[in-house]
Formats: sequence, structure tokens, C-alpha cells
Amino acid sequence: MKFPLILSLLSCAMLGSVSAQEFDPADLETARELRASALAGNGGFDVVEDLTTRVGPRLAGSPADARAVAWAEAMLLEAGFDRVWLEPATFPTWSRGHERVAVVSPVEQDFQALAIGYSPATPAGGIEAEVVMLDDLAALEAVEPEVVAGRIVFIRNRMERARDGSGYGPAVQARARGALVAADKGAAAVLIRSIGTSTNRFAHTGGMRFDTAQRRLPAAAISNPDADQLERLMGLGEPVVIHMDIDAQINEAYTSHNVIGQIDGAVLPEEIVALGAHLDSWDVGTGALDDGAGVGIVTEAARQIMALDERPDRSIQVILFAAEEIGLWGGRAWAQARAEEIGRYQVAAESDFGAGRIYAMAAKVQDSARGVIEAMAAELAPLGIELTDRRQAVGGPDFIPAAPLGLAAIDLYQDGTTYFDYHHTENDTLDKIDPEDMAQNAAAYAVLAWLSAQSPVSFGSGPALLERDED
Amino acid sequence: MKFPLILSLLSCAMLGSVSAQEFDPADLETARELRASALAGNGGFDVVEDLTTRVGPRLAGSPADARAVAWAEAMLLEAGFDRVWLEPATFPTWSRGHERVAVVSPVEQDFQALAIGYSPATPAGGIEAEVVMLDDLAALEAVEPEVVAGRIVFIRNRMERARDGSGYGPAVQARARGALVAADKGAAAVLIRSIGTSTNRFAHTGGMRFDTAQRRLPAAAISNPDADQLERLMGLGEPVVIHMDIDAQINEAYTSHNVIGQIDGAVLPEEIVALGAHLDSWDVGTGALDDGAGVGIVTEAARQIMALDERPDRSIQVILFAAEEIGLWGGRAWAQARAEEIGRYQVAAESDFGAGRIYAMAAKVQDSARGVIEAMAAELAPLGIELTDRRQAVGGPDFIPAAPLGLAAIDLYQDGTTYFDYHHTENDTLDKIDPEDMAQNAAAYAVLAWLSAQSPVSFGSGPALLERDED
Ligand SMILES: [Zn+2]
Ligand SMILES: [Zn+2]
Ligand SMILES: [Zn+2]
Ligand SMILES: [Zn+2]
Repeated sequence: MKFPLILSLLSCAMLGSVSAQEFDPADLETARELRASALAGNGGFDVVEDLTTRVGPRLAGSPADARAVAWAEAMLLEAGFDRVWLEPATFPTWSRGHERVAVVSPVEQDFQALAIGYSPATPAGGIEAEVVMLDDLAALEAVEPEVVAGRIVFIRNRMERARDGSGYGPAVQARARGALVAADKGAAAVLIRSIGTSTNRFAHTGGMRFDTAQRRLPAAAISNPDADQLERLMGLGEPVVIHMDIDAQINEAYTSHNVIGQIDGAVLPEEIVALGAHLDSWDVGTGALDDGAGVGIVTEAARQIMALDERPDRSIQVILFAAEEIGLWGGRAWAQARAEEIGRYQVAAESDFGAGRIYAMAAKVQDSARGVIEAMAAELAPLGIELTDRRQAVGGPDFIPAAPLGLAAIDLYQDGTTYFDYHHTENDTLDKIDPEDMAQNAAAYAVLAWLSAQSPVSFGSGPALLERDED
Repeated sequence: MKFPLILSLLSCAMLGSVSAQEFDPADLETARELRASALAGNGGFDVVEDLTTRVGPRLAGSPADARAVAWAEAMLLEAGFDRVWLEPATFPTWSRGHERVAVVSPVEQDFQALAIGYSPATPAGGIEAEVVMLDDLAALEAVEPEVVAGRIVFIRNRMERARDGSGYGPAVQARARGALVAADKGAAAVLIRSIGTSTNRFAHTGGMRFDTAQRRLPAAAISNPDADQLERLMGLGEPVVIHMDIDAQINEAYTSHNVIGQIDGAVLPEEIVALGAHLDSWDVGTGALDDGAGVGIVTEAARQIMALDERPDRSIQVILFAAEEIGLWGGRAWAQARAEEIGRYQVAAESDFGAGRIYAMAAKVQDSARGVIEAMAAELAPLGIELTDRRQAVGGPDFIPAAPLGLAAIDLYQDGTTYFDYHHTENDTLDKIDPEDMAQNAAAYAVLAWLSAQSPVSFGSGPALLERDED
């Protein structure tokens, strides 16, 4: 189990009342009001509905990227932030032309496939080669090159369903690195079973590691039913030959923007509570769960705070990151620009795991702030959220590049049981979002942002945070 | 409710013991053995697995049609039928080139779409026109031509989910006739919300009425999430313009074959119990539920009977029909060839509603055979099947063309709650079938076939059957 020790009972009994006293009782009362009003609202869902309807899919570097940035800037201004601005992020882009993956022998059948991000194209007209099936990336790493030379490597590892999404990490290695490892061994191309948990016949796209120094092969994911079919065809005992035709392009550097809205703090305006989500999506689906939901959740949390009669002590920012999907480019640019001022960030928290309900929380803060975190957890408990003993929170993918700077962070863990049924597929559309779950998320982020802004102590961003004893 | 009066309790109490005596007790004992052995078997699933793996999708008239016929002939011979033969069926074919449906204004987004069977192509390069949204076919029939002239008609009716599939009939009118009615009114093309119950982003294809005398428009179905999106876009208040590009062809007459296997009867070999399913499928998915499942179910039922030490009194046939999807062409040819000898058919029953469990039964037989039907129902009751008072059984779609001849028929109603989630989509694949449900189906058809073959009375096929008082 990932979170073996639930501290809420034990610690709150010992520390809860002490910690709670660290907050001004009026701030705790406001947190409860925020929680109630966010739970009753629908604003987060309205935001993701508007984004997915008016912009739709918004692959980084595509024409829809600029439309999404313009939408976000206008939306944040309309929401009432004190200041809204753009910060540039430059990256190589990838665009999908087409993909066709078809069995040509011993039978003829088309597969549902999506090229993997940063996959190169096949030679025009495609390639045709026999399939070698391997269990996972480790098997590919171990295989003798002559076994795969000139062939299409099919990596069949299956992602396991779990509430915390823990099946993703092990399985996704095949997508992230398969095309690089197979290139070194002289293979012709790579096919993977989709990194996803559904039996619906959608291929799941996603990125592969992009490193200009390393050769990559054309690579595609096939849907899980097609992966089952390929295994059955391999089981017939005859060689299986596949035709694979991918058109795709890696393009010149493109500059998109992180879009940031700020509520100016009344007391410590230079200190910042940073709520994140990413604005880009894959080019399939409408990016509703990934990450329109996050955009809606953190925007609505801030909007609830803006609706208060009072201002927060610290400033609160909503950061809508660029180009997360194809390599955390927005997050990298953001971290780079803050190398000298990470100490200004009270805390960072990103919503990027769909729209499932939040059930747990973890915090990376200085020990002196644990009491405040526990008091915050007590206000999140009525939402069904338990504080865990994890101290390795990163705040979300776009804050990972800032982790080496010692960024204080809170993770709110969403129920991801069904997230990977839709993730990175044509099926990631608005109807997959439950507005009530969105409201629970917005309520949690509103409480988190408000109490972080009102905290009597600093959470301790900075190099010293890296030196904590880690459990 | 569709089956208001469940007769099993009432009638069995009054007639059951009398009726049961009409069967030889040894035949009833054999029926029970068949039921048990079919329930324990997996043969039906094995058949559909083999068909969907080795042949895959098999659109009537496509190259896969001939492969499917060859597969079926070999499979029935291998299964041990006394005789296996082909009967020709000739029909116009339709083939899909491509379809693209994209919103171009007020936003740019692609939809998941499938052209409807027998749709003509759009002019090369496609058409671009404003969308007019209508509630259903009735609204289209009522609308003034100038409202739709030159425009793309979007029919938004939603299919309702129901165990008995009763939501299909009302909704499917839009698909069957929309393109004909809209042509008469001068529209440019037709889009429909998919006739299906899922929120997965698959378009559901299917046929439109084919009548060479009537002009048809290019027509496509969009997935249900895309239909929702189109409604939202219409709600923005600006004209919605769609680009629609369909390539498709109607071809010369093609001759496929109904594939028939017969177990010769020992006593009345000229009298026939006919079990049906259709061999063809749409070109999307692998036709696992529609109708690979039916092929597996009726073949396995016959195979269970062939495994007995004794032969049935009457002959039993498995008929795998050609070209059901694009217009019941195999069923029409079958009926035409039997106009003079329908009296030979003790009963007809087709499995063509997926692989859900059977929960009810209806019979169209002469009144003199009602007692036998009730005795049969008593042997099906342990499978969870209730006899209804419906007397309008047709046996299944491929037997509809023979209905005017007075073909006696039994319907076994399958639970279709989820059938229309997959029906006619890319998502109709083997993994959607539960082998245990297949076995329940096979057990029911084995009992039905065996007891029909052993019945002491004729079920009364022939013109006289049409003259019964209908309730
Ligand atoms: Zn994401
Ligand atoms: Zn993602
Ligand atoms: Zn069918
Ligand atoms: Zn069908």
C-alpha cells in the first residue's frame, strides 16, 4: 500500500487543536464558507465545458495552441484576477499526419492505432515487417539484437487499474523508451499495447522521450482489444507481418505561453500560493479530463476566493501551463525563470489527474509547517480527504522541474480508478466529467489556497527544504 | 411493458403436466442433458473467437465476405454436420472509402463519424454547409423545404437504453430514412446522432433504406459525445458550418452465399428445425457481438446435439446468412427459394442480438402446438427464461422475408441492455462477450432445437399460420 499510515486520527488527536490555533479562527471560518460555496457551485465544470467546446483539442504548437492561450487569457481576465499575463515557453513541436497499422499476414485486418508523440515518420508508403512480441521494456533491454533486427517490436505489457494510478508508471516505460531502446538494437519500428485500462477500442497516445542525440524508431500504440487480437494472431503459430505507415513531423521551435492570473495578496503580496493545471492537451479527444478538468478546478477555486469580501494575505496565482504533454516545456520554462526566487512560493499544487474525487493529501513543507498542514487537513477531512504521511509531494507534473529548487508542494490525490480509461484517447470528452466531483475538487483547492495564503508560518520553499530527512 | 402476461406460472399449472406428456420422457431427459452439457461448454465462444480472429470484419461483398464463407463452410464441416452446402444470394454492395466530418465555423473541430451504409459519396473535396438541427425524422418530415434547402440536416434523436432494445426502433428511423426524406426537401446532406446507447466516442454505422428509385443524400452518423458537442456549438448562437467529405461506392451485383449445415433427422428427415445467425458484419469492429456471437451460439447448440448418441427425429439446420446488415439479402434469397416448401420448416429461430443472456421466449405456432411450446418452456425455465404471451415471433431478422409464407418461429429474447453500446461500431470486438452468457444461449438453443425436432406435433408452418387470430 502506498500510504500505509493515515495520520489524520492519530495526529489530529495529538496536535489538531494546537495547530488549529495557529490559524486565525476567522480564517478557518472563511475556509469552511469557501468549502461550502465551492461544493454548491458549478463554475469549474462551466470552465472546462467552455474550453472543450470553443477550443477543443489543443496540441502544443498546433494552431489550437494559440487559440487556447487567447481563450485562457480572456477567461482569467473575465474571472476577475487582478493581473493576467503570459510567459513564454519554447519547444520543438510534433504533429501527427496519419497512422495506419494493419496486419497483412496470416490474415488481413486493420488496427486502431495512434502514433506516439515525437515518433518519426516511416518511409513513405510505410514499412512491412514481421512482429516480435516482448513482455515489457526490460525484456526489450535484455533481448539479443539479432532477435529484433529489422522487425517490428510489439511490447505487450498491460497497465493495471488502481485508484492511485500506480499501474501507469511501470507500464508507461514501454511508451517512453521503447522506441529508443529498440533503435539501438536495430529494430524497424515499435508497437505497444496502449497504456490504458479500458477495453474500449481506443488507442492511447502519449509522448516518448525526446532527446535529439538519440535515434528513435517510428512507434505507435494500438488499442487494448487490438493488442489482444495481435496476441491471438501470434498464437496461431504463423509469422505475423504488419504494415505500419506513420506520417508525422517534428517542427522548428515554437513559442507558446504559460498563462498566469494573480489575486494580489493584501499583507504579503510578494509571497505566492501557486495553483497549476496545464492548458495544452493531446490532439485526440477534447482534453476534457486531461487537463481541462484541472483548468476548471483551479480557476474555480481562485474564483471562490475572489468572491470573498476579503483578500487573502498572500497572493494566489493560477498558472495554466503550456506544452505539458510533450515534455513539461511550460513547467521547465516556469522553473527556469524562478531559479532565484523560489523562496517567494509558499506552496505549489497542480490538478492534473482528471476529475475524480480527492481522497488524500500529502505535503512537502518544512517541519515547522506540519502543524498548519494538519490544521488544513482537518478542514479538508469533511470532503473525504485524509492526510497521508508522505512527505514527497511534488505538486504535480509541471512543478517537477522546480522540485530541485526546493519548491514546497501539496499533492491532492484524486481517485484515478477510471482516469486511464480515457487518458490520451479520442474518448477524453466532456461527458466523462461528473460536475459534482469537479465541485469537490474545487472546494479542496479553494481551502488549500486560502489557508496556505493565510498561514501564520512559511512552508519553507528553498534549498533547505531539499535537506529535510526524507522518510 | 412489452410482455404483460407471463404465462409460465398460470399455464404450467393448468397444462404443464399434460403437455409434458406429449413429449417422450426420454426426449425430455435428453433435453436436460443437452442443457447441462451446453452450459458447461465453451464451444460457442471458441467459434466466435476463431471467426473474429481469422476473418475479422466481413462486410457483405468485400474481399472478407468470401473469406468468411470459406471459413464457415470449413467450420461446419469440421463440426460434423452431415451435409454442408452454399446457396447463392445476390445483392448490390456498398463500400466505404473514407468519411470526414469537421466543424469549420465558429470553431474548428473534427468529429468521429461513420458514413451510413448505401450513402452516396459527396462531390470530391466534400461539401460545406450550415447545419439545421431537427429533433427526429418526424420533424424532418414536417419541416418546410426552404428551412433545410442546401443545408446539412442534423437529426439529434437519442436512443434510449432498454433490456429489450425497444429504444432502437424509434431512433433508427433517422438512419434508415433521413437521407431519403431530406433529399426530397433539397437538403445537402444528413448527419445523425449515432443510434447507440454509449457515451464512448464511437460512431455507429448501419444501413439506410436502399431503393434505386429514390434519391439519397450523403449521410453519416457522429458519435454521441460529438452529437452533444454539436448541440453545444449550436447553442453558442452563431451559424455552425460543417465540412463533410464522404467517399463511398455502390457496386455491381455481388453473389455471396448462405452457408448451411444439416444434421439429418432419423425419423422425419424432410422436416427441418432451422437455427439461424448471420455471417456478415459491418466493416468496423470485428463483428463479435453482431453477429459472431449468433454464429457461435447456434453452431454450438447443433454441436451439442451432434455429440448425442442418438439422432434427432427431424433434421436440424444451421443457416449462416449472407448480407444481413445491408438489407437482409441472404434472408430474402432463402425465403424466395422456399416459397413452395415452407411447410417443411418445423420452426425457425435466429440468434442476432449479441451475447447477453436469454430471459424470455415467444412462439408463433399453430394453437395445437401451444402445449408443446409450454413443455419446452418448462425445460428453458431453469435457464431463467420465461414464456411470454406474445404470438408474433418472427424468429429473427433473416427470417422476416419468410414471415409472409407463414413460417413458424420462436424468438428467444436476449438481454440487450448493453448491446447498443457496441452495435455497428469499431468497438464490437471479442472482449465484449462473456463466455458464460454464450453458454447459456447455446444451452437454450440446444433445448429449443432438440425438442422442436422431437415434438409429437407439427408447429404448423404454412399459410394457415397467417390466419390465426392474432392477439
Ligand atoms: Zn495531464
Ligand atoms: Zn496527459
Ligand atoms: Zn445482426
Ligand atoms: Zn447489425
